[in-house]
Amino acid sequence: MKKLNELADILKTKDNICILTHIYPDGDTLGSAFALCRAFQKIGKKSKVLCSDNTQKKYENLKFFIENQDFKIEYIISVDIADLSLLGENLAEYSDKININIDHHISNKRFAEINYVNFKSAATAEIIYDLLLELEIEIDIKIAECLYIGISTDTGCFKYPNTSSRSHRITAELINTGIDISKINHNLFEIKSKKIIKIENIIYKNLEYFCDEKCAFIYITQKMLKDLNIKNDNELEGLASIPKQIEGVEIGITIREKPDNLYKISVRTNNNVNAVKICEIFGGGGHPNASGCFIKGNLEYVKIQLLKSISCIL
Amino acid sequence: MKKLNELADILKTKDNICILTHIYPDGDTLGSAFALCRAFQKIGKKSKVLCSDNTQKKYENLKFFIENQDFKIEYIISVDIADLSLLGENLAEYSDKININIDHHISNKRFAEINYVNFKSAATAEIIYDLLLELEIEIDIKIAECLYIGISTDTGCFKYPNTSSRSHRITAELINTGIDISKINHNLFEIKSKKIIKIENIIYKNLEYFCDEKCAFIYITQKMLKDLNIKNDNELEGLASIPKQIEGVEIGITIREKPDNLYKISVRTNNNVNAVKICEIFGGGGHPNASGCFIKGNLEYVKIQLLKSISCIL
Repeated sequence: MKKLNELADILKTKDNICILTHIYPDGDTLGSAFALCRAFQKIGKKSKVLCSDNTQKKYENLKFFIENQDFKIEYIISVDIADLSLLGENLAEYSDKININIDHHISNKRFAEINYVNFKSAATAEIIYDLLLELEIEIDIKIAECLYIGISTDTGCFKYPNTSSRSHRITAELINTGIDISKINHNLFEIKSKKIIKIENIIYKNLEYFCDEKCAFIYITQKMLKDLNIKNDNELEGLASIPKQIEGVEIGITIREKPDNLYKISVRTNNNVNAVKICEIFGGGGHPNASGCFIKGNLEYVKIQLLKSISCIL
Repeated sequence: MKKLNELADILKTKDNICILTHIYPDGDTLGSAFALCRAFQKIGKKSKVLCSDNTQKKYENLKFFIENQDFKIEYIISVDIADLSLLGENLAEYSDKININIDHHISNKRFAEINYVNFKSAATAEIIYDLLLELEIEIDIKIAECLYIGISTDTGCFKYPNTSSRSHRITAELINTGIDISKINHNLFEIKSKKIIKIENIIYKNLEYFCDEKCAFIYITQKMLKDLNIKNDNELEGLASIPKQIEGVEIGITIREKPDNLYKISVRTNNNVNAVKICEIFGGGGHPNASGCFIKGNLEYVKIQLLKSISCIL
């Protein structure tokens, strides 16, 4: 693998750079992309950010951090993209043209001409921070805000186990630029839409406990989404963490109804309960404390299958 | 004011040290006290921690980080205590005997023989960290956990505006000792009791909007607490932040019924709305984004008075 200073040396010679982000764009892919784009524009290069999907409201402000530039693309960088399928339909045309792939996912498929993957980084934004130091581009307050959003999103505001000493050290430097972390975090982590409040209430009302209350199930049905006029999947982000936050619960399961008798299952676990073991029985997978799978059938069947799988573990 | 190295020089000569914490003990007063106590015990001094109130379940583990030592108290330090009234009934006897007062509150009353108050610190735990460096006592994994709890509690897990570059820098060092921040943060910030979930549901159901939905009121009545058998005030910590988390809300008001027609009002604001201005009309006060006051009367009267006060501001 190339070193970061070698990457910087290559980038110094390039111009008209397009930066690709992943579908369902989160704070890390967007923060990394906009930080890098603004940095390129600062040193006189032409650069733009592309994404297949619309961005959530909380990230909309980032687009004002860069100039809207039109140019013929000469060089392509992907950020926070582990697999080409995550480019989405609108960016699929770039699949075989990516020059540099910068990412922190252990599962990264190394699909580009040059791949820089550091899975010890809590966020791709941490790698971009180091890259900007190598490029000797000043990290101004707006670049700092982008990178802070990347790091705080992927570490759950410094709560998740991936949060490292280095995440905090970089953040200390970003704060020195004068970013308003209180305002940023309010937008990222605190604001709830009225629809989400309503759906949370229904979810809590239908919540079910199993296995001596060590396991809690919540349900999101098509009817609930229709009644509340929720169309955007992004809005439901975060609901899956509800059941595992309840005192005493070790396994929190979210059962989400999809069309055609299909159910999307999200498993979140505390302590040492391995969520992957529950999901892999159904052909799914993920991380030890956060995994997922799909199960076909009616709701009662799905519940019984899950409880069988859980009883082998608890 | 004495410097921290002078404080360390004095402490080196002392033994049989008692550390006082404040009533309704939070993570900062407890984390600071247990860190300091363990540090003293590590270098062969006798030390203990006292508190007027019982500690919340989430902090109970800290007591196992120190040895239970019995001795005749020779030296007294208060940590995170801004005012002697915060000693509480059981510690009132020490009011005029405190040798060192270590705190970060701007309102600190400097009641001790030696007062070390640094209001630029996000938490008293940050001062204790610096003091331990001056004392040249190794910060082991348990001291690090205490200090991390102090900093993360008082910064709202690095979300609040008091979070400084230094908070992150110290935290980076603490993480290097190997503390399990994911587990600590789950206990501090994620776990919700079943009672709290139930009361939250009732709160959301009764929530009212005013002033073009820029203001939201929530209500906690005596009946709700009785029905749910909630006796401990500590359990309600955090509910006051519910209304200001709703999209578009700038002023979130919590009206809590107390006995004898008295209502405790908590005001939380976003953006630049000054909560103090709303509360000072009723003889209350606090910080720009978090203030409180008491109003006597029936609920309808209380609401009208508050809305009058708010309409002058929005």
